[in-house]
Amino acid sequence: MTQPDVGRIDGLTYPRGVAYMAGQFLPMSEARISVLDWGLLHSDVTYDTVHVWDGKFFRLDLHIERFRRSLAKLRLVVTHSDDALRDILVECVRRSGLRHAYVEMLCTRGVSPTFSRDPRDAINQFVAFAVPYGSVANAQQLREGLHLHLIDTVRRIPPESVDPQIKNYHWLDLVTAQFQGFDAGAETVVIKDIDGNVAEGPGFNIFAVKAGALHTPERGVLHGITRRTVIDIAGRQGIAVHTGALGEDTLRDADEIFITSTAGGVMPVTRLNGEPVRDGAPGAITRSIYRTYWEWHDDPAYTLTVEYAG
Amino acid sequence: MTQPDVGRIDGLTYPRGVAYMAGQFLPMSEARISVLDWGLLHSDVTYDTVHVWDGKFFRLDLHIERFRRSLAKLRLVVTHSDDALRDILVECVRRSGLRHAYVEMLCTRGVSPTFSRDPRDAINQFVAFAVPYGSVANAQQLREGLHLHLIDTVRRIPPESVDPQIKNYHWLDLVTAQFQGFDAGAETVVIKDIDGNVAEGPGFNIFAVKAGALHTPERGVLHGITRRTVIDIAGRQGIAVHTGALGEDTLRDADEIFITSTAGGVMPVTRLNGEPVRDGAPGAITRSIYRTYWEWHDDPAYTLTVEYAG
Repeated sequence: MTQPDVGRIDGLTYPRGVAYMAGQFLPMSEARISVLDWGLLHSDVTYDTVHVWDGKFFRLDLHIERFRRSLAKLRLVVTHSDDALRDILVECVRRSGLRHAYVEMLCTRGVSPTFSRDPRDAINQFVAFAVPYGSVANAQQLREGLHLHLIDTVRRIPPESVDPQIKNYHWLDLVTAQFQGFDAGAETVVIKDIDGNVAEGPGFNIFAVKAGALHTPERGVLHGITRRTVIDIAGRQGIAVHTGALGEDTLRDADEIFITSTAGGVMPVTRLNGEPVRDGAPGAITRSIYRTYWEWHDDPAYTLTVEYAG
Repeated sequence: MTQPDVGRIDGLTYPRGVAYMAGQFLPMSEARISVLDWGLLHSDVTYDTVHVWDGKFFRLDLHIERFRRSLAKLRLVVTHSDDALRDILVECVRRSGLRHAYVEMLCTRGVSPTFSRDPRDAINQFVAFAVPYGSVANAQQLREGLHLHLIDTVRRIPPESVDPQIKNYHWLDLVTAQFQGFDAGAETVVIKDIDGNVAEGPGFNIFAVKAGALHTPERGVLHGITRRTVIDIAGRQGIAVHTGALGEDTLRDADEIFITSTAGGVMPVTRLNGEPVRDGAPGAITRSIYRTYWEWHDDPAYTLTVEYAG
């Protein structure tokens, strides 16, 4: 794949990578779903994402477990066994040659041959792909900290409407907040839940550090695998973790703030709505957790090594 | 298109019809978007649907106006003029040969060539398609009335999260309710809003008739074009219409119930959670509005005739 990957129909350029769908491995430009798929037309789809760093999957077992739980809740069926699923993801990465990859598995409700409106008539579609690793924060932001805005004009879709533990693509609240944040000079944003507490950002959880303890929302947010990894690390390091409602005041008064995502790991936040967080530099606890997070990427207990060709 | 329309990659059967995307008219099996399109991966997309009945579009101008408003709110750009947009939709129908068609126009955020997470980097994608007309209610249900269940375990995504006047694909609340309704023997379902009032169903608005007046929810629901047409018809017929919070009690005590959708028009409901609505037959006001609704489909003031080939 030294040539650019260009779409046959649309002439657009696609990222490097390999997808799997309908029993075939395909370049990214050819990995396409029907516009009649309810995954598009009703966002009737669930997914999970895992990353590969330095040729190794990180905590893939947890991602596959969560994907299975999401599928079950939506009554979606992926017929591959967990082993087969893992092998498909590994093969996407292996064929892509990517040493640092963002790997996604998803299952849509699919297309009904008659365009029937009954979701039971649709044929569920499993898709997986590996593309180059991407991060919420770029290299400078990882070093110096992100500029985050807490946006108060849109609220995260509540769990009474959509169970956030079903990893889902209902992001218009987050996208709306992103555009408002960009207008205000933010690099990224976090929004509140319907009760007015801090919830989450586009694809990440948030932690506040206060008096040496971590505080992170529990209800109405996805329980991210990176969030869980941070909680695991805090346990090893003897750092207390409070999961529960996170008020705006706690965030604004935090000693440190960081965000967590499979797309970027542990990422420091050093400005909140334009104001520096304490001295405006990544804090000691954030840096300590960051270091351990990446050290674990070399630990066979948490990783699966890809055997690349050649 | 006498041969079945079978997908090249997936071997699945697709409905008859014609799509437009990337400057080309395509059979439905070939109308595919990238799995990297944020329209799929973040449901970052808006749409509108209009129907063609007996070779004529119904109130197409209103649908295009609403689509433009939705696009503007999401900062999505469709470069076609309204006239060009209309011509594309007409051409999809003309090429399909369908005299009764369900016609959808949509615009996704699109793909970023680098898979950047910044929505401003993506190239918006416009897609349109015409497939055979489908209805929420089949012929028997239109005659005898639908069996509807009010589902109380999931609440419609509130306007504080997603503006319902942006026609959107965030349907997991509705899909979840559909499956629960099917388990309970429902043909279709309606759900409540976050405050506990009756909201809407999967793709339709709801009306209760009480003492000769119509009652329909106003806040937290899409203001459907068929809903608006019913309000217009009621105005002509001297029927009062109350738009505002619709309590469960009002629905359970209604003289008549009907639902409205571009996919089916005005559809009577004759059972609610297993209990007959009054005598269990479509009511007089529902039938009167139904008749006028279909009469308007022959009125040049509301229609645009498709010039089919041959």
